[in-house]
Amino acid sequence: MKNITLEQAAEFLWEHDRYLILMHKSPDGDAVGSGYALCMALRSIGKKADTLCGDPIPGIYGYFTELVPNEGFEPEFIISVDLASSSLLSGKASEYRDSVDLCIDHHCSNTGYAKYGYVDGKVSSCAEIIKYLLDEMKIEINKDIANAVFTGICTDTGCFKYSSVSPDTHRTAADLLEKGADSGYICYMMFDNKSKSKISLEKMVLDTLEFYCEDRIAFVAVTAEMLQKSGAQECDLDGIPSIPRQIEGVKIGITMKEKPGGEYRFSVRASEDVDASEICGHFGGGGHRAAAGCSIHKPMEAAKSEMLAVCRKILGDNV
Amino acid sequence: MKNITLEQAAEFLWEHDRYLILMHKSPDGDAVGSGYALCMALRSIGKKADTLCGDPIPGIYGYFTELVPNEGFEPEFIISVDLASSSLLSGKASEYRDSVDLCIDHHCSNTGYAKYGYVDGKVSSCAEIIKYLLDEMKIEINKDIANAVFTGICTDTGCFKYSSVSPDTHRTAADLLEKGADSGYICYMMFDNKSKSKISLEKMVLDTLEFYCEDRIAFVAVTAEMLQKSGAQECDLDGIPSIPRQIEGVKIGITMKEKPGGEYRFSVRASEDVDASEICGHFGGGGHRAAAGCSIHKPMEAAKSEMLAVCRKILGDNV
Repeated sequence: MKNITLEQAAEFLWEHDRYLILMHKSPDGDAVGSGYALCMALRSIGKKADTLCGDPIPGIYGYFTELVPNEGFEPEFIISVDLASSSLLSGKASEYRDSVDLCIDHHCSNTGYAKYGYVDGKVSSCAEIIKYLLDEMKIEINKDIANAVFTGICTDTGCFKYSSVSPDTHRTAADLLEKGADSGYICYMMFDNKSKSKISLEKMVLDTLEFYCEDRIAFVAVTAEMLQKSGAQECDLDGIPSIPRQIEGVKIGITMKEKPGGEYRFSVRASEDVDASEICGHFGGGGHRAAAGCSIHKPMEAAKSEMLAVCRKILGDNV
Repeated sequence: MKNITLEQAAEFLWEHDRYLILMHKSPDGDAVGSGYALCMALRSIGKKADTLCGDPIPGIYGYFTELVPNEGFEPEFIISVDLASSSLLSGKASEYRDSVDLCIDHHCSNTGYAKYGYVDGKVSSCAEIIKYLLDEMKIEINKDIANAVFTGICTDTGCFKYSSVSPDTHRTAADLLEKGADSGYICYMMFDNKSKSKISLEKMVLDTLEFYCEDRIAFVAVTAEMLQKSGAQECDLDGIPSIPRQIEGVKIGITMKEKPGGEYRFSVRASEDVDASEICGHFGGGGHRAAAGCSIHKPMEAAKSEMLAVCRKILGDNV
């Protein structure tokens, strides 16, 4: 991948046309917000652009303006946003795994799968980068674009909580509010709006809480049975992985989720002196230092104890 | 109370000396942050200043620089911060109920108890006003002051979540980060750091969850027994009142807390089309539109049903 500057990325987008913007599987607010914002912005300057995600866009983003697909659209250039690795493309989007022209991302762990890349691992969210890109392109940010970018930033920063938030992140948010972003509503939808099923799931999850390694590791589990009993949906799992990490003194918070087909998905959250992506890297996963994920295809107790063993080792080495 | 401009408040503080800064009972991040920031700033320009709160400052603010009291201090001017009513002064601070010279506040419901007042109900937090005041006074904001102001803003905005957050709130936060505010650490301490006792209390609170008025009212209770069983402290109650309001479709979230002496303290959180301060006003309490509180001196079931009756009436009238 050839790393280019923000100016070059802006030039690239101004020069060409017919863009397909790819978003990763299980899309979160940063993927959807970045993809939608870029697509709307490109359309606003007369370019043809569409977004593509292999998984359905969660209903929680229903306040986004609907992007009506271009009829009979034949993309010429493939762009990815917030996509650390092309292996995170699913469904129809995975057909473009080896043909991404331009990657715009904020993951340090970006694997460099694209022809050109603008990757800045110091920026809070891909959406924040999209805002800088649109400013560089001198594209007018309307209310819809502002809402999409704001959604991305607030999702990936836990609503401006994480240490990845810089003065520029807050200044970007200030601009977006002035462009009409409904920040109060978006934050409410993202962080303060729980279904009854989610509340019920949270209670069950708290009942599974266990501590290891002198309380430096906290562990919770989400089983298929709990999902069924609570009536919780996939999107109700948002925020669950931060529960174990929030407990005083905990350095590693582990959430183990039962998936169909005997697979266990782990979400790992770490304190500043521990690298969650290193832990998940042991199992072929990845992510950021503070938050990462991986899957283990083993029976539950084996998957859990392998994960705990790696965490214990990391704590022994580093703390 | 004579309402003065920010410029006049700045002049007042530059002109005089020997300030005692009062904070309300059960001090929260905005009270402590505003009081400490103003005290440190006044000291930095050579004024004598102390803070006074009738209740202990919660240990969670332990990262604040300790304000060593002036020896044999005789205050000449009394200032209040974040104090909607002088009835919210407790202990030794209540001796100054009728002698506040300057009140700096952001509560619309401010009762005008002081000689002079600068009250702006549109600003997110009192701490945000303190920042504008210090800028107006051209006082250099150091890291300690930045941490105190940031604590106040993030506490009163639910970490930039509420609709009271303006573009200027984010710009103020950007400035504070540049002055060295440890935003990641502060947000973690305020929002993501729960004691084991708090987690245990939250589980118990969720078990009391009840719905009324076609699920538009959600109710939880915190009893003395729950506090004792979980080992939770007073500060572990922070955030509990937002639990019932967070549930999808809920317009009024009520948290009822048992206090010593047969008193029940209610925290009311409301959606945008309901006024929580109106509800609490029925019982002699007050606060903001989105969040208010009051006490009812009745047996538990009577207190609860009186509160529910008022909420039902408000929903019938307004929704």
